[in-house]
Amino acid sequence: MQLREAGTVSGSERYLEDFAEGQTFRSGRLRIDKERVLAFAAEFDPQPFHLDEATARDSIFGGLAASGWHTAAVTMRLMIETGLKPAGGFVGAGLDECRWPRPVRPGDELRVECEVLEVRPSKSRPEQGLVKLRTTTLNQDDESVLVHVVNMIVPRRKQDSC
Amino acid sequence: MQLREAGTVSGSERYLEDFAEGQTFRSGRLRIDKERVLAFAAEFDPQPFHLDEATARDSIFGGLAASGWHTAAVTMRLMIETGLKPAGGFVGAGLDECRWPRPVRPGDELRVECEVLEVRPSKSRPEQGLVKLRTTTLNQDDESVLVHVVNMIVPRRKQDSC
Repeated sequence: MQLREAGTVSGSERYLEDFAEGQTFRSGRLRIDKERVLAFAAEFDPQPFHLDEATARDSIFGGLAASGWHTAAVTMRLMIETGLKPAGGFVGAGLDECRWPRPVRPGDELRVECEVLEVRPSKSRPEQGLVKLRTTTLNQDDESVLVHVVNMIVPRRKQDSC
Repeated sequence: MQLREAGTVSGSERYLEDFAEGQTFRSGRLRIDKERVLAFAAEFDPQPFHLDEATARDSIFGGLAASGWHTAAVTMRLMIETGLKPAGGFVGAGLDECRWPRPVRPGDELRVECEVLEVRPSKSRPEQGLVKLRTTTLNQDDESVLVHVVNMIVPRRKQDSC
């Protein structure tokens, strides 16, 4: 993976009122290097099809594949680099679903597209609400490698601030 | 995180026929070191509440918290070390849901409990089926920090093999 300087949410933060159903946000691309695929798998998902090319060829993946959790982590990184920028940062209440339609191969270049599915003020906590997003992670051939639906906790804009 | 030798699925692999609703599987414990929390966040989830103690104190997490994707990755590692050992390895068709009820703090010791919710032969692919698991990741105080429901693809036992 090509590392860039760790970014922080700043400037153009979005509050609940700034989100609307149908908005879409896109990231740049990130290359998934073989070295990082192997290191992630060794630490978190030490299974032969993530670690060894010869064994992986005979597995269900038909070749070395990144751990699905590596793809999910890279997806988080790419989401942060979109224009979404929720005020207070990305705070996930949870996922409604997550699928991995295709394996990620070393050398793949990934990007994400996020679509706002729903914006809902909280009944019990009037200072915040939920934004439901469908996030699709795509490879360089525009094939989906991860799709998840995430509920983000987003603060409402204070009435007395601009 | 304490690293151990990368394990592989071997010996007592389980086929679809070896799983039954209500079975439970438990892992050992893994300590989440601050250094790994910061390194994971820097690579995949560079947000202030995962990177900086002072900023994290004033955030929704009230202190430094591991990325939820770090917790998910550690959960995978712990699942591999349970007695589940699906034949051919852990191959996830997807998650039905995923929640992070509490933050993970540096120094926490995590373990997982998996419960088989459903075992279903595939109609279209007679050589395999799906095992639906609820996985709960707990800290040293037995508080849930991650709960997900995952559908695993598991091969059926061949009729002509033992």
